[in-house]
Amino acid sequence: MTSNTQQSAVTVLGLGPMGRALAGAFLAAGVRTTVWNRTPGKERELVERGAAVARSPEEAAGASPLTVICVVNYDAVDAVVRRPEVADALKGRTLVNLTADTPDRARDTAAWAGDHGIGYLDGAIMTPTPTIGTPAGVFLHSGPEELYRAHRPTLDALGGTHTHLGADVGRAAAYDIALLDIFWTAMAGYAHALAVARAEGISARELAPFAQGIGAILPPLFEEGAADADSGTYSGEGNPITSAVSSMAHIVHTSEAHGIDASVMRAAEGLARRVIGQGHGDDGFLRVTELLNPSA
Amino acid sequence: MTSNTQQSAVTVLGLGPMGRALAGAFLAAGVRTTVWNRTPGKERELVERGAAVARSPEEAAGASPLTVICVVNYDAVDAVVRRPEVADALKGRTLVNLTADTPDRARDTAAWAGDHGIGYLDGAIMTPTPTIGTPAGVFLHSGPEELYRAHRPTLDALGGTHTHLGADVGRAAAYDIALLDIFWTAMAGYAHALAVARAEGISARELAPFAQGIGAILPPLFEEGAADADSGTYSGEGNPITSAVSSMAHIVHTSEAHGIDASVMRAAEGLARRVIGQGHGDDGFLRVTELLNPSA
Ligand SMILES: NC(=O)c1ccc[n+]([C@@H]2O[C@H](COP(=O)([O-])OP(=O)(O)OC[C@H]3O[C@@H](n4cnc5c(N)ncnc54)[C@H](OP(=O)(O)O)[C@@H]3O)[C@@H](O)[C@H]2O)c1
Ligand SMILES: NC(=O)c1ccc[n+]([C@@H]2O[C@H](COP(=O)([O-])OP(=O)(O)OC[C@H]3O[C@@H](n4cnc5c(N)ncnc54)[C@H](OP(=O)(O)O)[C@@H]3O)[C@@H](O)[C@H]2O)c1
Repeated sequence: MTSNTQQSAVTVLGLGPMGRALAGAFLAAGVRTTVWNRTPGKERELVERGAAVARSPEEAAGASPLTVICVVNYDAVDAVVRRPEVADALKGRTLVNLTADTPDRARDTAAWAGDHGIGYLDGAIMTPTPTIGTPAGVFLHSGPEELYRAHRPTLDALGGTHTHLGADVGRAAAYDIALLDIFWTAMAGYAHALAVARAEGISARELAPFAQGIGAILPPLFEEGAADADSGTYSGEGNPITSAVSSMAHIVHTSEAHGIDASVMRAAEGLARRVIGQGHGDDGFLRVTELLNPSA
Repeated sequence: MTSNTQQSAVTVLGLGPMGRALAGAFLAAGVRTTVWNRTPGKERELVERGAAVARSPEEAAGASPLTVICVVNYDAVDAVVRRPEVADALKGRTLVNLTADTPDRARDTAAWAGDHGIGYLDGAIMTPTPTIGTPAGVFLHSGPEELYRAHRPTLDALGGTHTHLGADVGRAAAYDIALLDIFWTAMAGYAHALAVARAEGISARELAPFAQGIGAILPPLFEEGAADADSGTYSGEGNPITSAVSSMAHIVHTSEAHGIDASVMRAAEGLARRVIGQGHGDDGFLRVTELLNPSA
C-alpha cells in the first residue's frame, strides 16, 4: 500500500485539451500536480491554480509516484517516454496511459514498461473534456488489478465512473476503439445531415431539436441490438433491412442531387445491400454485424 | 370544417410494421378504421380489434374522409394510388402520406394530388413502431396549413408530438432525410463496433452499457454543433479534428487487422483528412459540414 502523501501527488504529461482537463481536476481535488507538455505555454492557467511545471518529462515523472500521460496517440507517447532518462525516472513507479490508440499498441507499451520495471495501466476516456472532474466522466482501465486498486484513490480525483475491465492490458483500448467507432461514425452522420439540411434550406438550429430526438432513440436500440448480436438472430419484424436500404438510397440520392459527397452513406448502403443479397432482407439492419464478422 | 363523424374515420393503406402500428393506434383511440394491404393476411389482428378490410385501395379510400398511406417508398405509393379508380375515390378527400422518400418525390406527389382534386399532406415518422400511440412518437408534417389543422384531431389519435413544418410540402421529407442520415449512419457505426468488439473478445452485452453512454453524449454535442454550423465557426478547442482523425485511423487499422471491412470509417476519415488538408486542423470535426456544403 502506498502512503497517503504518495497517493495525493500526480504528474500529467501532455497538456492538450484533455491533459489540461485532467490536471485541472487533480488540482481541484487537492492533489499535488506536476505538469509537462512538449510545447511550453499551455501550462499557464494550471500554474496559476497551483501546478508545478517540470522542464522535462524525466523531471516530471520523478516528481510523483503516479504519472498520467494523455497525448494524441502512442507515437507521441513513445516520443515522450521511450527514452532512457524517462524510463529511469519511471522505474518503480506507475504510468497510467490515458491516450487513445489500438489494443496492440497498448500491449506493446505494457511490454516495454515491464522490461523497464515500470508499473503500467492502460486506460481510455469515453467522455468530452467538460465532463472531467464531474460525475459525468467515464474512464475505462485495464492491466494488473492490484496496481489499479493501489492508484484508484488518486484516479478518483478525476470524478466520474471508473471501470476496471480486466488484466488484459489491451482491453480498455479495445472498448475504446469500438465505442469511438460508434461516436465518430455518428458524428460523420451528423455533419452530413447538417450539409443536406442546409441544401434544403433548413438551418442547423431548426434541425437540432429533432436531431437530439434521434440521439435519444439510439440507446434503447443499442440495448436491443446487443441481444440480437450475441444470439446471432436479428429480427426485422419492426423494421426490415429492405426498408432501411430504401431510406439510405433516398439519402444518397438527395445529397448527390445537391452535389454533396455521400461516400459514408454509400458505404453503409453497400453493406446493407450485401446482407439482402445473402438472402436476409427480412432481418433487421444490425445483421450487418454478421457480414462484417460472422460469429464463430 | 369536417363533421365529428367524418373526423373519426380513417383509412390506412399499407400494413407493414409501421402501417399496422398506425392502424392499431387509430383503433385504440376509437377511430373507425379501414385497412388495405397489397398482400392480404397482414390485417388479421387489426380485424380482430375492429378494423374493416377493403378489397381494393379504391374501396379503402372511399370509406373515409382521410386516407393515410405508409408503404416502403413513393414507387410503392404510386403503384397504389396513381390509378384512375383510386384518384376518383380520393377526389375531394385528403391523403396523408407518411411514407419516407425524397423532398422531390413529395413535391411531385403533391402536384399529382392537386391535379386530381385531392387534398395532400406529406409527413414523416421519426420514431420506431413501439412508440406509435404513445407520447414518445414523433411526427413531422408539411403542406397546406388549413388542411393540416382540419385533420390534426384525427392524427392526434396516433399520440406523440406532431409538428407542422410549413406549407412547402417537401419540408417533412427534407427533415426526414437529414434525420435518417444521422440515424442510419449511427446504426452503421454500431454494427461495425459490434463486429470489432467481437473480434476483440468483447460480447455485445459487455459493450452495450458503454455504447448507451456514447448515445447519451450525442444530443448535447448535436446542440453545440448546430450553433457552430449556423455561424460557420467550428471551434476545436475541446477536441481538434487532428485528434479525431487519429482515432479514426486506429479504428480502421484495428478492424482491417481483423479482416473487417472499414469502408464506412475510411470514408469518414477521408472527409476529415480533407478538412485538415484545407488548413483547418485546429477546428472541430463538424467543419466537415463546410467541406460537404460550404455556407453561401
Ligand atoms: N478532447 C476530448 O474530448 C477527448 C475525449 C476522450 C479522449 N481523448 C483522448 O485524449 C488524448 C489527448 O487528446 P487531447 O484532446 O488533449 O488533444 P490531442 O490533440 O489529441 O493531443 C494533444 C497533445 O498531444 C501532444 N503531442 C502530439 N504529438 C506529440 C509528440 N510527437 N510528442 C509529444 N507530445 C505530442 C501535444 O503536445 P503539443 O502541445 O506540444 O503539440 C498535446 O499535449 C487523445 O488520445 C484523445 O483521443 C480526448
Ligand atoms: N418501421 C419503422 O420503425 C419505421 C419508422 C419510421 C418510419 N418508417 C417508414 O414507414 C414506411 C413503412 O415502413 P414499414 O416499417 O411499415 O415497412 P416497409 O418494409 O418499409 O414497407 C412495407 C409496406 O410497403 C408495401 N409495399 C412495398 N412495395 C409495394 C408496392 N410495389 N405496392 C404496394 N405496396 C408495397 C408492403 O406491402 P406488402 O405487404 O404487400 O409487401 C408493406 O405494406 C417506410 O417509408 C419507412 O421508412 C418506418
